[in-house]
Amino acid sequence: MMQTEITAMINALGVFAFAFTGSLRAIEAGMDLLGILTLGITTALGGGMLRDVLVNRIPYAFQSSSDVLTAVFGVIIAVLTLRTMRKDFSNTYLIRIADTMGLAAFTSTGAMIAYYSDLSLFGIIMLATLTACGGGIISDLFSSRIPAVLTENFYATCAIAGAISFYLCTINHINPDIGSMLCSILVIVLRTMAIRYQWHLPKIRHHTGG
Amino acid sequence: MMQTEITAMINALGVFAFAFTGSLRAIEAGMDLLGILTLGITTALGGGMLRDVLVNRIPYAFQSSSDVLTAVFGVIIAVLTLRTMRKDFSNTYLIRIADTMGLAAFTSTGAMIAYYSDLSLFGIIMLATLTACGGGIISDLFSSRIPAVLTENFYATCAIAGAISFYLCTINHINPDIGSMLCSILVIVLRTMAIRYQWHLPKIRHHTGG
Amino acid sequence: MMQTEITAMINALGVFAFAFTGSLRAIEAGMDLLGILTLGITTALGGGMLRDVLVNRIPYAFQSSSDVLTAVFGVIIAVLTLRTMRKDFSNTYLIRIADTMGLAAFTSTGAMIAYYSDLSLFGIIMLATLTACGGGIISDLFSSRIPAVLTENFYATCAIAGAISFYLCTINHINPDIGSMLCSILVIVLRTMAIRYQWHLPKIRHHTGG
Repeated sequence: MMQTEITAMINALGVFAFAFTGSLRAIEAGMDLLGILTLGITTALGGGMLRDVLVNRIPYAFQSSSDVLTAVFGVIIAVLTLRTMRKDFSNTYLIRIADTMGLAAFTSTGAMIAYYSDLSLFGIIMLATLTACGGGIISDLFSSRIPAVLTENFYATCAIAGAISFYLCTINHINPDIGSMLCSILVIVLRTMAIRYQWHLPKIRHHTGG
Repeated sequence: MMQTEITAMINALGVFAFAFTGSLRAIEAGMDLLGILTLGITTALGGGMLRDVLVNRIPYAFQSSSDVLTAVFGVIIAVLTLRTMRKDFSNTYLIRIADTMGLAAFTSTGAMIAYYSDLSLFGIIMLATLTACGGGIISDLFSSRIPAVLTENFYATCAIAGAISFYLCTINHINPDIGSMLCSILVIVLRTMAIRYQWHLPKIRHHTGG
Repeated sequence: MMQTEITAMINALGVFAFAFTGSLRAIEAGMDLLGILTLGITTALGGGMLRDVLVNRIPYAFQSSSDVLTAVFGVIIAVLTLRTMRKDFSNTYLIRIADTMGLAAFTSTGAMIAYYSDLSLFGIIMLATLTACGGGIISDLFSSRIPAVLTENFYATCAIAGAISFYLCTINHINPDIGSMLCSILVIVLRTMAIRYQWHLPKIRHHTGG
């Protein structure tokens, strides 16, 4: 993989955070231990697997063990946390930071792989967004709810903006590694501001007769 | 792509129609602007992406921009329409025609690509049907409902019949381009008659005890 | 395919059983004939298609006709059974045996293909489990419910244990064909005992405040 050590670290943090939040959802939905493990791993690795399948690569998570072990570690911490604590951990400051890091890392690896697969601007946007949000979408489908990313807030928009910034870097002949860094930073800044100032996209009012 | 200009035009109309109907569903489900855009694009391009992944090709929509732009245009028109009109546009004559065109176009491109990938009869049927219905299925899953194609009406059946007609053409050494044309026409005729005469497949009554 | 005749027979029995149970679900959900056919085929072939896509192969079911015909046969038997009988067939002894056979067969073909694709231990576990459970997961999503495999019982766990046993065979230089046999037997034994003694995995209690 064309990841610097810093990206690898951010990526691992993202996998951990997504596994943690995925496990929390599974526990809330009353699943058994295997369901929790599955949903945690799916949330953490589903986006990357979707990304690899779309550009005709065998999923990285099938060939290496590091991401899977990190995801399992995230699930274990989630289970231990909920067994010992009484408060809902999913909204704490720490998890939000880690989740934002994951969003940034997955957006930039998706954009990078799209770039090396010679995709168009829209290919880069779609692959980056699917990498960042795919795990959450699949795990929401497994929980039989409308994917949060489609209804809720300013989340996927950050990934889209990040992917566009990466594209602008590449057409201006900026080194992809630096473009990926800038993309990550933009995602982190946008997402943090979206949470801080409660940004959200407008809804379209539907005139249902009368 | 092995598409004549006419097929390309019909295909674009199909992408537009599917983007339009997908957006309407998203608006009805109360999604925000990004959700509407996502669902519109998914309905329009999801079937083709599924098709390309299944025969190990990088999705065409990732490499070209025309389909994505057409889909975005469909979403914009849907949003503008609903903001200015009070009536539900999804059942109008115009949309039904466009949707039928899309069904026909996607069925024949799916069958064509299956043919060039050396698939069996069942491979052709499945790829044609998944191309035509896959976008709708994914967008229904995103809206957390049972895919309409599985419960409702004489819709996928038209795609299946079209794919079989394409197969019959090829084994009789008819040029695939002409086979694809005949397939499209059959789908349009069947679908129009199914709407006109309210055809539907029989349900199997389930004896639940007593 | 690297399948002995016995594996091919077990595989066909699995396809048949999964098509049967998938059709029952579709009938219970009030779907029409096409919905029943789709859900039956999806349950029977979905796992194998997912497996093939993940390791970049064109789905076997698209190139051969035997699996599709077996699945269609399973759907027909399900429909005929429910039209003539009044009792729910899904919990009978016969279906449970066939379903267990299918679970075993799909787990071992998944593990085998993962092995020949040079996947890691986790790759083998994930591919074997997705092959065995993927069809059921997709058909549950189509029926708009939480995949049974995530909430219910000691099912996927048998596939995971089988995949691990296959891996242990291969690193001990045991012939993959024999490893696949041992994997199948372990899955059958575990699943039978899980049903007989009503094994299930523990749930994590979630302290919701107070």
